[in-house]
Formats: sequence, structure tokens, C-alpha cells
Amino acid sequence: MRFNTRLLVITALLAAAPAAADEGMWLPSQAPEIAAQMKKSGLKLDPAALSNLSTAPMNAIVSLGGCSAAFLSPQGLVASNHHCVYGSIQYNSKPGQDYLKDGFLAATLADELPAAPGSRIFVIEELKDVTAQMLEGISATMTGRQRYDRIEANQKTLVQACEKQPSRRCDVRAYYGGSTYFLQQMLEIQDVRLVYAPAGAIGNFGGEVDNWQWPRHTGDFGFYRAYVAPDGSSRPFDKANVPYKPKSWLKVSAKGLTEGDFVLLAGFPGTTERHRTAAEAKAFFSDLYPLQQRLLAEYSNQIKSATAGDDAAAIKYANALRGADNIKKKLEGQLAGAEAIGLLARKAAAEKSFRDWALNPARAAELKPVIDALDAIAAESADARLVAARYGLLNRGQLLSAARTIYRWSQEQAKPDAEREPGFQERDRRLVTERLTQIERRFDPRVDRKLFEAALAEYRTLAPASRNTAFDRQLEKTGLDRLYADTRLGDTQWRLSLLAKTPAELASDADPFLRLAVAMFETDMAREAESKERDGRLQAARSAYMGAFRRFAAAEGRAVYPDANGSLRLTYGHVKGRARDGASWTAFTTARGIVDKYTGAEPFDSPARQLDLIRKGDFGRYAHTGLKTLPVNYLSTLDITNGNSGSSTLNARGEFVGLAFDGTIDGIIADWWYDPSINRTIHVDVRYMLWVMDRVDGANRLLGEMEIVGRK
Amino acid sequence: MRFNTRLLVITALLAAAPAAADEGMWLPSQAPEIAAQMKKSGLKLDPAALSNLSTAPMNAIVSLGGCSAAFLSPQGLVASNHHCVYGSIQYNSKPGQDYLKDGFLAATLADELPAAPGSRIFVIEELKDVTAQMLEGISATMTGRQRYDRIEANQKTLVQACEKQPSRRCDVRAYYGGSTYFLQQMLEIQDVRLVYAPAGAIGNFGGEVDNWQWPRHTGDFGFYRAYVAPDGSSRPFDKANVPYKPKSWLKVSAKGLTEGDFVLLAGFPGTTERHRTAAEAKAFFSDLYPLQQRLLAEYSNQIKSATAGDDAAAIKYANALRGADNIKKKLEGQLAGAEAIGLLARKAAAEKSFRDWALNPARAAELKPVIDALDAIAAESADARLVAARYGLLNRGQLLSAARTIYRWSQEQAKPDAEREPGFQERDRRLVTERLTQIERRFDPRVDRKLFEAALAEYRTLAPASRNTAFDRQLEKTGLDRLYADTRLGDTQWRLSLLAKTPAELASDADPFLRLAVAMFETDMAREAESKERDGRLQAARSAYMGAFRRFAAAEGRAVYPDANGSLRLTYGHVKGRARDGASWTAFTTARGIVDKYTGAEPFDSPARQLDLIRKGDFGRYAHTGLKTLPVNYLSTLDITNGNSGSSTLNARGEFVGLAFDGTIDGIIADWWYDPSINRTIHVDVRYMLWVMDRVDGANRLLGEMEIVGRK
Repeated sequence: MRFNTRLLVITALLAAAPAAADEGMWLPSQAPEIAAQMKKSGLKLDPAALSNLSTAPMNAIVSLGGCSAAFLSPQGLVASNHHCVYGSIQYNSKPGQDYLKDGFLAATLADELPAAPGSRIFVIEELKDVTAQMLEGISATMTGRQRYDRIEANQKTLVQACEKQPSRRCDVRAYYGGSTYFLQQMLEIQDVRLVYAPAGAIGNFGGEVDNWQWPRHTGDFGFYRAYVAPDGSSRPFDKANVPYKPKSWLKVSAKGLTEGDFVLLAGFPGTTERHRTAAEAKAFFSDLYPLQQRLLAEYSNQIKSATAGDDAAAIKYANALRGADNIKKKLEGQLAGAEAIGLLARKAAAEKSFRDWALNPARAAELKPVIDALDAIAAESADARLVAARYGLLNRGQLLSAARTIYRWSQEQAKPDAEREPGFQERDRRLVTERLTQIERRFDPRVDRKLFEAALAEYRTLAPASRNTAFDRQLEKTGLDRLYADTRLGDTQWRLSLLAKTPAELASDADPFLRLAVAMFETDMAREAESKERDGRLQAARSAYMGAFRRFAAAEGRAVYPDANGSLRLTYGHVKGRARDGASWTAFTTARGIVDKYTGAEPFDSPARQLDLIRKGDFGRYAHTGLKTLPVNYLSTLDITNGNSGSSTLNARGEFVGLAFDGTIDGIIADWWYDPSINRTIHVDVRYMLWVMDRVDGANRLLGEMEIVGRK
Repeated sequence: MRFNTRLLVITALLAAAPAAADEGMWLPSQAPEIAAQMKKSGLKLDPAALSNLSTAPMNAIVSLGGCSAAFLSPQGLVASNHHCVYGSIQYNSKPGQDYLKDGFLAATLADELPAAPGSRIFVIEELKDVTAQMLEGISATMTGRQRYDRIEANQKTLVQACEKQPSRRCDVRAYYGGSTYFLQQMLEIQDVRLVYAPAGAIGNFGGEVDNWQWPRHTGDFGFYRAYVAPDGSSRPFDKANVPYKPKSWLKVSAKGLTEGDFVLLAGFPGTTERHRTAAEAKAFFSDLYPLQQRLLAEYSNQIKSATAGDDAAAIKYANALRGADNIKKKLEGQLAGAEAIGLLARKAAAEKSFRDWALNPARAAELKPVIDALDAIAAESADARLVAARYGLLNRGQLLSAARTIYRWSQEQAKPDAEREPGFQERDRRLVTERLTQIERRFDPRVDRKLFEAALAEYRTLAPASRNTAFDRQLEKTGLDRLYADTRLGDTQWRLSLLAKTPAELASDADPFLRLAVAMFETDMAREAESKERDGRLQAARSAYMGAFRRFAAAEGRAVYPDANGSLRLTYGHVKGRARDGASWTAFTTARGIVDKYTGAEPFDSPARQLDLIRKGDFGRYAHTGLKTLPVNYLSTLDITNGNSGSSTLNARGEFVGLAFDGTIDGIIADWWYDPSINRTIHVDVRYMLWVMDRVDGANRLLGEMEIVGRK
């Protein structure tokens, strides 16, 4: 991959421009700042309503942790993507009962199935500025580690106080490089059930071939339901639990959208890197991403070859494979996209205009040290990331990963809860337990060993100083044969029982994976300490830098949205096709495209009933008024990223009009740079969802509990 | 692959329709039949001119044998596709002088390089109906073999008479299943030189990734020159040879085309199957194509793995690999295309309307036996094709293939020339010699052995009765190690010298490949005899069937064009994009798309100079007037297939406006069924060619000898 200076001319123009129309992952509290733009773009709701998380439509928005979703009925019915509920479909499938292939529809409430362990529905309740509390006690003279620890302690105090409320899950996240912090409070629904997912040939139509592509024809939707105790409190699965009654739910527009329509989306975008420096961008695109891309490509091939001809193993690793392929394709897209848009040149030009401002004689004395500090610590972090990418592969051995979690857990248990490492506190017990449980459905010793061996080979390419000598020595002593022959960690009961052990008890256990984990521990802790010191300094440097940047933007009169960090964001835009060289994308695909792509074999299979209905043109009330046929997917300019999958798309009146589920491969460079001529989000059209539910799958029970408006 | 009954409704409508507008690979002599349609479509030339092969523009059209081409200058300059001159670029390349990568431009006439051995330019002179002569002496009571031999004898007589003229190459081909025969007479230019080919990053931009795809940005053009003796006679390469002066050459339109424009194309389409019966279509798509597809996919992987890490070997097998990949992709496209358009249902419906007519009581007594006879013999042929596909793999061992050719040659030499098998007559000596010579550039013993071993494994899956027992026994006796260690066939001098040997001399030679070839001979001859008997009966059956079909078409008032068979054909159509679901294809791609696709690595690399010019928008007089940028490729509705590659595309006035070079993957089912809503030909735009020649490569010498019209 080379980084050329193409598009410098265009970039010079872009660099000075404000955020492009339709760009931005805004905090709900920023709604007033962008109210005028949203109204002008077509929003019919009061923009102020979007700042209020305790009223509709915002209080219908939920997170699944990694995916977004929303309530679509007063009975706690939650719509998200097929690929977001995929793990739960897989968890309930087995040879002879293949819901991944055949789909699943619960005939009654009683038939709704427990989702995969660890599945949660988080109902967003509050997003509160806690910057002052988070930075309490911070001083400029602190070491990185002191700063890190203090911020962590402040964060724990805030989270703990918040989570004293029953069944609340709270987190505090950094915005603008840690110059601002918000506390996000969510009700945690622990009893999540799988209600409905169409056949894989609908929900995953096109599979990996169509992933990140347009034209697209994927019915990427599925339904969960939130359950609570009869008294309304949140508790784990219990037969006596009843559907949760949300405060609000989205009305479902049967009318759908047409090209040019305003759309709004609220969800939980995971990570963007738009505020990284040009030098950081170079480090990611020259070194880190190419490395990660290769590692994932190899991992994907390893899984395929290790599970070939073994259906049970293939089902167990389907989720891991899918995940690896998805990220790999994303990385490839980012690498190509950076090249295509001339990212580094754009970054450099945009950064120059800020730094020119900052280094103006009036401000240079104050801001030059700020810039220099970030540049120095960012370079250090870049090197550490490259090592971590290889070192982290060791956790591909699922039992080693489990053993490390268990041993760390025991170490942290020895401390008071408030002093424990985040992720190992009492509040994390259930999640840890469920992750350790889930192994039973996703682990095959023969496959695990092959993947672990491959990971080891890569790990061994690290420089000696970056390896874990104690681990090396212990592994050599044990040997892979004994490691897998003698371990009992494959036994779920025993694995879980270890969470109650002390470090000493674990250290004296003969289990070879535990012994490996114990051996690794000391070095791992030293690495973690280095990393925290660096992160502390990074927080200081980046928060100062972003503070300066926001002053610069304010001087230019434009709002700045923070990089995505998994917290609730708003974005608005329009239904819009896209011009390309030699082709143009129309805003909608239609049922005809399913027949055109159909081959009878994965990934272009299609249920016979659906094909038959399409051939007959039996679209009834679900046809697009203008197109006079059934719309399947559509494109919009919405600015989203991973984590937004499953986000309900809302029309100008805040009604449900579909689900966001993907972007296009050449647009995923948007994580670094949004370009309105390139970036498009792909949605399932509400009319396709309703048609499949009504005509293909007969999901009338669910249609009956929705509030469908605008029916023909 | 399943064959469903989709689109039956549409098919019922189509079945009765005449040939679609823009459909048809017409014999030049049919121009009067379609004159009105062509005029209506926009032709400005006198349609009658297109029947006359001795005047412009038809006498500027040439064949390269497998590709089409045309004269573009009075100095014998011939334009064709980059992929058509690829073998000659490869032949002249070696490590350190990589014309495949860097391109080649002869600075002067003296720098023009001999094309790959066997390269020919065939100047079309005449296409004459010889049906009466070909069927002379044929009677209904003959056996298949008698009929086959008689037709072959008649053919030889005709060809021999024609080739008595100096330097003429003549062939007689069957049309409409052998109910008509035409003799095609061509001047054979034996001294062909490589003049110019742009860099691989232009000529093969997009590589296999973009092959059969749109949007496309491939500069798929290259130039040969025809050379003859100073007295104008054709002779092999000689330093004293001079450029051939063609009777006419195409004017080059610098204005190019715009969407909707009429286009005309004359070239040599290889094979289509549009007149096959529905049962034959089923046999191809259920059995033969899936088998061939698998065999080619395996072959491609075998070549890649055998040449990995060995640059010299990779160059030697580049042509074979490219060929295999291209055909494999074509087969995949045909299989998917048949499924997508519901080919079998369309065939069945179309056939039904003909057969209903034929089996009308007034005609049934006469035509039912005709139909039954074809159905029976076609079924027999289908079985034989499946065996031949596997048996034929043995020739992937290049030295075995050479040994078989040599031994057969010696056997045929024992007969009078007129009785020899076609391909082994005196007139074939040069071609055979050149093929045997070419091995030296395309053979690597280590690679050959791997490919041969793989071919053997597949051959051994044949039922015992379909194998060659003598071959098996001989191979077992020799063993592969000795086969490759002891052979001298890798020595070109020795290999060629064997053409002078008698069968007895060859049979007593110890060379292990020769011994294998000798062992195979008897069984091979028996198989050939069976095949000729079958083919004789097939000719009788199919010519009768097609005769009936043409009566049917005439009764419906429509012209019937024969299936493609490698002879000169005309087709006309329009520059036209294509609507698809979720996207539409515009008729042109532009230079911008090259930059969009550019990654800096194959297949999306691009010469720095070209990128630089595109970024500057330096298109000068070559910009498309409407698009205001440089057009690169365009789409048309022209009805072409393999063999048409390199065909000059002509505008309504018969001027050169580009080169056809590809179709799209979902359109290649056109070999079986042309659908104007699907089928598109992809062309290099003349303006892109001229721009690359002028601005990127500085090929002013060549531009200077062309007759460029319509310059801005």
C-alpha cells in the first residue's frame, strides 16, 4: 500500500470547509446546536425533543451492546439486525434444527427462546456531563499512571453511585480526547429472548459476497423481546418473567420513504478516528491495518480449514468466522478507501489549517507544547499497538483466554471491589460468567488447538523483549499435546467453579492452561502498568489538544461532534443514491433484484415461498408508491459506523422506516473521513420487513402488537 | 445448480417473438435481408457495401485466428486487443525486459518485433456458398462414417483448389447444422510483428478482478503490423520484408460516439449454441459445464501452486493460466446466467412453438422423424462429450501432447496428402511446426509434471471402458520419474526433427513420451472412428432439422442467422447503458474511474504519467463532448462472443470508434440466448486509445500513419 498525494487540489478546498451536510455523530445534547440544520433538512419533530432521553422517540432507543436497536411495541418487542441476533439464532441451532438456515418464529410468547448467554437489552435513560467529577483531583504535575488511576477511581465512584439504582448499567466515556466526559445510564434487561428471525436466505441474502456492497437485497432484521419479573424489575431468565413494558415504542410507518426524504437515526456508533492526527493516521494505514488485515485473513482460512467436513464444528465457529471475515473486509476497505480519497493528504491539509491557527504568534507559546506533547505520546502508542496486535493473538486459544480471565479474576477478588480492575468488579461477575459459559457452544478442542498453534507461530515473530518469557518457558515444558490432553477447562461446570478460587489455589492447580495463565500473569501486569502510564499521559495530551481544536472550530463558527465511542448519538441525512463512474446507484433496490441474484445456492438462495410471491408480483399494500414494486434495501447519507447496526431509521416524524445494517466498502473510510459524495448507509426497508413478516413468514402475532401507521 | 421454471410467464411472450432488435451475427451476404433494419437503426453507409468483401470497409477486416482485428493504416498497421497480442508481448518478455508490465513501443519500423510463433494475420477476401459442392455424392442411405468421409473429401477438394492460389488460407464451415456451407478465403500474412502495446497497467487494468465486469476501465488495445516480401507476396519473417499495403483501412474517428449512437461490427465470432435443442441445453448445463468448470478451477490452482516463487516459470505459464481463468469465469457466468434468465424454460418454450408447427398434421409425417433423429443422436453425443472432457486432459502434459502430434503426423505422412486428416496435411506443416516450437517458451518440466500428474488423477476417474488400456499399461511400466528424466522431447531441435520420421522409426525410439504416444494410438484411432460415425449422423440429422426450422422461420417472416462458427459476421446495435436493480450502468466510463480504482498494486495499478495527466484533467482534444472528460470504455448492445475480441467497432459511416473486448458476466449466457435487456459488449473508446498513444506513450509515429478524421 502506498500513500500518494493524489487529490491535493480537491483537498485544499475541503480542508477549510465546515463539516459536510449530513455529516456528524452528534450527542443528543447537541441537538440545539444543529436544530436549524435539521429543520432545514426536513425534520418535522421539535429538535428539542431529541435532547430529551426520557421522552419519545429517544426513550424507545436501546443498545444490545455492540449493536443498536429499538422498541417496536408496548410489549417490549425489539427490532434489530439479523446479524445482531445471529449469535442467539446460532446458540439455539443444532444439527437437525438449523434456525440459521430455516429461520425461527415463536408461535406464542411461551415459544420465545432464551437468547445467547450474555445477551442484554440496555434501555437508555440518561447521558450526563460529568467532566468536573472525572477530572477532580487531577493536576498537571501527576505522572501518567497517577492521572490514569485518579481518572479510573473517579469513574468508578460515578459508576458505582449510578449503579446503586437497581438494574442500572452505567458507564462513563471520554469525549474529545478526554476533555469532556459523559455518564450514560441504562436499564439493563437481563432476560432477552429470541422472537423471530427470517430464514438465512433472507436475513443473510448475499452473505459475504454482498457484504459492504450495493446493490443489496438483504432482509437483515430480527426480533428480540425484553422480559422482566412480574413486578417490573430486571432479572435473569425465569419462566415466570413477563414482557417488559417500555415507556415508549416507535410507530411503524407502512408508507416508508422515497428518494430525497429526510431520515434520522439514533444509535450507538462504536469507534471513529476522525480527530486523530495526520501522523496517527499514517501509523494506522502504513503499519497497523495491514498487519491486522493479514492476521485476520489467516485466521479466517485457519477456521475454514480446521472445520472443513465437520458440521458441528462449523456451527460452533460460524460466529468467529463471520466476525473475522467482516473485520477483514472492513480493514481492506479502509486501506483501499484511504488510498482512494487520499486520506493522508486530506488529513495533513486539514491539520495544517488548525495548526497554522494554533501556532499563530498570539497562541504559539501556549499551544505548541500541547501539539508537541500529543505528537510524541501518539508515536509511542503506535509502536505499542503493533506489539499488542500480535501478543493478543494468544487469546485465540479459548481455554487459555478463559484461564487468564479466571486467574485475573481471582487476583482482583483479593482487593476491595472499588479497587478492582474494570471488567473484574462484582458488577462484571455475570458477564464474565456468561462469557465463560458460552465457550461450551463455541469450542472444539481439535479446532482450538489448530487456531492456537497458528497464533503461537505469529506470536513467536515478536522481538524477544516483547514476548512473555515465563509463558514461553511454561509452554515448552508442557507441550501442546499435554496442554490439550490434560486440561479440564473444557468442562463448563469446572471452569465456572474456578471463579470462586483464590490465586494461591489456582496457582497450585495442575491444569496446564491454568499453569500457563499463572506463568503469564506477572509480565502481563507489567505490560499493563506501562500501558496505563502511557494512557494517562495520552489523556493529558489529547484532551489539551482537542480543547485547542474546539477553540479553533468555535472561532470558525462551527459545531464539533466528538469521535464515536459507543455512546448514544444522533445523525440525520437523506435517502439518496450515488453517482459513480460508469454506473449510478439508485436509492432503492427492489424484489426483482432478489430474483436476478437468485442461484438456488448460498449466498444467493431464497425461500421458495418468497420467490413465488415475487414472481407473482404479490406485494399488496407494501409496494413503493413511486416504484410500484416492493422496495428491499435503500441508501442514505446517514453518518454511521460499527455499533450502529440494528439502529432504527426514523422518518421526519420520528416513525420507524427501516433498519441500518451496512455501509459500502469504499465508504468505510468514513471512520476516518466522511465524504458526502461517497458515504452511504444501507438500510432494510420497512416495507420489505412488513411484507416478509406478513406474506412470507406469517408473523401476524408480531404485526398485531405493533402500532403501524400510514397503511394503504 | 438447479434449473427452475422461473420466468415462464415472460418466456411465453418471448418465445413467439422474432429475433430481438440488435440481435444477430449475420453473414455479410445477409446484409440485404437486414438492410431496412440497419438503416432504421442509423446506418449511414449503403447496406449493400457490407455484402462486398472486396471493398471498404469489409476488406479492412482481418482475423488473427481466435481474435478479430482490422487495418488502421495504409502501412499494414493492425489494431486488436491487448489480450489478443498478449501472447506476443509475453513471447518477447523475459526477466528484466518485462513488456507485459512496462508495455512496448517500437521506435521505428526496424524495432518492430516478431510476434509469437504461429501468429498470423488473415485478410478476408471471399465468403462463398459451396453447399452444392460439399453435399455432392451424399445420399440418405450412407452410414455416418461414409457421410463424414464424403463431406470431408469434398471439403478438402474445395480447400485444396482454393489454396492453390499463393498464400491463401481457405476453410469451409458448416452453417445451420450443415444445411449450408460457405468457403472462406483469406490471404495469410506470415510475418506478423508486434508494434505497440501499452503498459499492462493500462492494457490489462482491472485484471481478473474486473474481467467480465462493468464499470470497466481497461485500455485493451495493441498493434501488430503485417509484413510481406518486397514483391508483395506473403512469406515468413525476413529482415528484407516490408509493411503490407492493404487495399483499404479504416478511417479513425477522433470524435468517437455518444450514447444512443449506431454501431456496427464485423469480426469472427467463435461459437454460439443458439440453435441447440432444449435437451442439448439441459445436457450442457446439468453435466458438461459444471464438469469443465471444476476441471479449469483445479487447473488454475495447479498452475499457481506449481509456479509459486518461480518468476521464469510463472512467465511461461502466464498464458495458460490466463486462458484457464478466462474460460472458467465464462463457464461460471454461463451457469449463473442460465439460471438467472431461466434458459431451459425459454429454450423449451421456443422449441415448442417450432415443434408444434413441425408436428402439425400437414407436416408431421415428414418432420417427426427429423426431430426424433436429432434428439437421439444429440443424446449420444452428450455422453461422448463428458468422456472427452476428462480424456482430453492428458494433453496437459505438453510433451505427451507433442509426442502424440508427432506420431500422428508420421502416420498421416504415409498417406497421399489429400487423404490425410485435416490438421496433418502439408498445408498444416508450418502451424504444427510452430506449435511444437512454442513449447520452448511455455514449458517447464517440473511444472509440466505436476500438471500432468493432476490430469492423470482425473483421467483415472473414467470408467475402464473409457480409458486407454495400452496407455495405462505403458505409463505404469515407465513410471513418471523415468518419463521426465529420460525424455529428449524438451529439446526443440530434436522435437522438430521427429516430424521427418516414419511411424516405424518413432515406434522404435526409446523416448518414454513417444512410447506413450505410440501406445495410445490404436485406441485413439478407434475412438476417432466412433466419433466420425456419430458426427456423420449428426450432420444428417441436424441439417434436416435446421432446414425445417428455417422453413418455420420463413413462414413467420423472419430472417435466421446461423450460429457462430468462426467465420466473418456482421452485427449492429447501439451505444447503450443498462438498468439494473439498485443501480444503472451509464454507457461510458471515464478517466476519473481509473483514479477511483487505483490502488498502486496490480490489477489496479496505473502508470504514473497517466495518473498525473488524469489528475491534471489533461484530456485536450480527446474529451467526450457531452461528458467533458475522457471516455475510457463504453457499452453497446452488439451481439458478439469469443473470437470477436479485437473487432473494430465502426460508427454509422464505417469509421473506427474503438475495439470490442469483453461482455459482462451475466450477459455471457448470450452464447445460448441473446436478451437485449441484459447483453452488453464492452469497448475501448477510440478517444482513450488516441489519448494514451498521444499523451501517455508518445506513439506519434503510429498516429501519423493513421487517417484520423473529425479532429477537434
